[in-house]
Amino acid sequence: MNEQLIKEMKERVFAANLALPDAGLVKLTWGNVSEIDRETGIVVIKPSGVPYGQMKADDMVVTDLEGHVLAGALKPSSDLETHLELYKAFKEINSVVHTHSKNAVMWAQAGRGIPAYGTTHADTFYGVVPCTRQLTSKEVESAYELETGKVIIETFTKEKIDPMAVPGVLVYGHGPFTWGKTPQKAVENSIVLDEIAEMAEVTEIVNKNILPIPQYLLDKHYFRKHGVNAYYGQG
Amino acid sequence: MNEQLIKEMKERVFAANLALPDAGLVKLTWGNVSEIDRETGIVVIKPSGVPYGQMKADDMVVTDLEGHVLAGALKPSSDLETHLELYKAFKEINSVVHTHSKNAVMWAQAGRGIPAYGTTHADTFYGVVPCTRQLTSKEVESAYELETGKVIIETFTKEKIDPMAVPGVLVYGHGPFTWGKTPQKAVENSIVLDEIAEMAEVTEIVNKNILPIPQYLLDKHYFRKHGVNAYYGQG
Amino acid sequence: MNEQLIKEMKERVFAANLALPDAGLVKLTWGNVSEIDRETGIVVIKPSGVPYGQMKADDMVVTDLEGHVLAGALKPSSDLETHLELYKAFKEINSVVHTHSKNAVMWAQAGRGIPAYGTTHADTFYGVVPCTRQLTSKEVESAYELETGKVIIETFTKEKIDPMAVPGVLVYGHGPFTWGKTPQKAVENSIVLDEIAEMAEVTEIVNKNILPIPQYLLDKHYFRKHGVNAYYGQG
Amino acid sequence: MNEQLIKEMKERVFAANLALPDAGLVKLTWGNVSEIDRETGIVVIKPSGVPYGQMKADDMVVTDLEGHVLAGALKPSSDLETHLELYKAFKEINSVVHTHSKNAVMWAQAGRGIPAYGTTHADTFYGVVPCTRQLTSKEVESAYELETGKVIIETFTKEKIDPMAVPGVLVYGHGPFTWGKTPQKAVENSIVLDEIAEMAEVTEIVNKNILPIPQYLLDKHYFRKHGVNAYYGQG
Repeated sequence: MNEQLIKEMKERVFAANLALPDAGLVKLTWGNVSEIDRETGIVVIKPSGVPYGQMKADDMVVTDLEGHVLAGALKPSSDLETHLELYKAFKEINSVVHTHSKNAVMWAQAGRGIPAYGTTHADTFYGVVPCTRQLTSKEVESAYELETGKVIIETFTKEKIDPMAVPGVLVYGHGPFTWGKTPQKAVENSIVLDEIAEMAEVTEIVNKNILPIPQYLLDKHYFRKHGVNAYYGQG
Repeated sequence: MNEQLIKEMKERVFAANLALPDAGLVKLTWGNVSEIDRETGIVVIKPSGVPYGQMKADDMVVTDLEGHVLAGALKPSSDLETHLELYKAFKEINSVVHTHSKNAVMWAQAGRGIPAYGTTHADTFYGVVPCTRQLTSKEVESAYELETGKVIIETFTKEKIDPMAVPGVLVYGHGPFTWGKTPQKAVENSIVLDEIAEMAEVTEIVNKNILPIPQYLLDKHYFRKHGVNAYYGQG
Repeated sequence: MNEQLIKEMKERVFAANLALPDAGLVKLTWGNVSEIDRETGIVVIKPSGVPYGQMKADDMVVTDLEGHVLAGALKPSSDLETHLELYKAFKEINSVVHTHSKNAVMWAQAGRGIPAYGTTHADTFYGVVPCTRQLTSKEVESAYELETGKVIIETFTKEKIDPMAVPGVLVYGHGPFTWGKTPQKAVENSIVLDEIAEMAEVTEIVNKNILPIPQYLLDKHYFRKHGVNAYYGQG
Repeated sequence: MNEQLIKEMKERVFAANLALPDAGLVKLTWGNVSEIDRETGIVVIKPSGVPYGQMKADDMVVTDLEGHVLAGALKPSSDLETHLELYKAFKEINSVVHTHSKNAVMWAQAGRGIPAYGTTHADTFYGVVPCTRQLTSKEVESAYELETGKVIIETFTKEKIDPMAVPGVLVYGHGPFTWGKTPQKAVENSIVLDEIAEMAEVTEIVNKNILPIPQYLLDKHYFRKHGVNAYYGQG
């Protein structure tokens, strides 16, 4: 194994995990971040149930794409199988984040995708952030974390959503997963997702008949920041 | 008395009490934590109405299971009798926490138990967190704090709820009590209770027809973290 | 003038003013605290519109009960006349606090008194925290701050409320005033008022048919903390 | 160019930009502040998409009123054209602030102006904070940021609102812009706008039939703080 690569991945994954409670997205030991190195297939993920205050970069667990632990004394996050399934299906993503952030969970519990009610949404998510269907008892009882990954992929496939254009999802009755090119970007997407979830909640209270923004405004804001014609930022 | 035991209990109870305002669950002098040592029957509890900023570990009050003060110059929390009643009925718990945390109080004031709308709930509470019936005038006027304990126990008995599986309750018109094997665990349960209370509030706003999660998902998440087949954490 | 008395009053009033943004009750320069010395009739109040970060204890303004500035280079809070009117009518109070704290303002703007939905309310406020009627155009245009004081007193007189038992009020379309024996106590009452305002908001959302707690529970909690039979705290 | 002038403008604009996340109004790189010097026509604005933690005063971008970059290695905020359009139409303002602050966005997404429900509103905004109409696809696709400025001006012109009396606006489906004589004042107006947006949300929940405050109370509070007869503050 490439020691230097793993060291750097551990540090990035560790920093991204710490960024979650700092952003107010995670309480206690909830939430986890992983990163994959696409060349070697090496995955680094947070250990299961270790308090943030005691966690060190070196505690991050190293696995392969099949979930075999390659290094580290600790057990990986119990959500590992979900992460791996997403890496297998969504070839362009290099990091996955799972949280129980309050507002995203509220929509997941309500079983509703988050409509694009404004440009804050459109800047990051190109359309509705979808909510999966409910898992069946068979799925939950057989291979729960794997099936969680599968139902996310099914949602994006069925609804023909590009996971790079909508880098996040709500799992019915559970909570959000987001992803991105890097752990930092995946965490940012979790921050935005929780923010737009809260904005959408109250938007519907302030105006019971509100509709999503028109497609042309969604296009404008999304493509102002993404793709070949982006002109936001210093890039 | 075992000096060393009491010293350690005081430090744990003190730390757990301080954890409440740190977690945003307590304002002013509201809230209290106690611990019992089952072998000796010694109980340690926060003193009544002392500001958190001035409180020291040694201010914690030592009593027996009948509420007699064994050591300490200060009066115990006025809620002591409720704690003692819970220790007598719920033999497996070693710590009790009472707060007026905002969201849990809102449900207590609304007189409703908190339905299990998602996995954040199921990870800690195996089903509805119940709300007691309203105390009668006779109960309130005779031995209020004792009767508060009794009505909690009545609720768990009548509804056939295992207090280890649902380590918390809402007292009608008042607020939450939680418990656990240790003061730290009991405090964590208060943190989770307030979080799921807030999530449930907005879940019902976002989807007026939402139902609790199915039993098989409740089972999965609860038993992923508890019992002989648990696989969450490093245990 | 008693230099020592004034120095101590200034320090208490200054500390109480700073406690407001610390408790999250005040943004920018909103909010003010005053104290009266009943023997000398000396009143100390925050200066008008001075940023909290630049304010010093010595900037507090000294006036008499008629609002004449006795010492200090700065203008007193524009709400001075309201404070003075309350001191004249409510003989037992020694401090008044005015804030625009979010949740209390929401009820004031809604024109509703806050019902006693739980024991958190009852511990500090012995019944509904009333909301005044709307001031008339004549009252607003003639002597607005004085009339604000008068309408508060009118509310307590008409509704036969003891200002020591309900140490706070909402002024219609404006916001809360609280009071107490000391600046610290008056600030605490502002903290509690905002907290119970928020609790009451959501209580009504979680249960649309909720009623206030029964009188016997209100009695129990209020008199557990106040009056000759109080047994809460170390007093 | 006047080096000293630009240096001071950069420092003020930098400080004002940092004040936004400090006040909880901005996450990630959202939000921007600019200032204009009316004599020279020099504009200083935040660079586009630079993280707040890495930004230095010297990174602020210097442009003229037509948007030509006069100094600085970085690209200006993508919202520059909106700022410039406002400076051209609203001759008395010297600073513009744009944020995605949560509560103001909620009203913008709901497509509603914020009614003046209380004196907290009236102290800063002399009447409804208006919401623009939705931009057409043609406007969005041709010169989006410029048209955003134009629709704000159209709103104030059509509704005959004085931009100095109502120093802020909601852009439909997008979010708030505020302005003022100085960057500090424009930021303060953003703080107030988000606060009154939240207050108004819940005011409507607590009382479904609430009406705005009467004109005489709006007058009283606004003119207590603004204009020749103002008596609030030390001015």
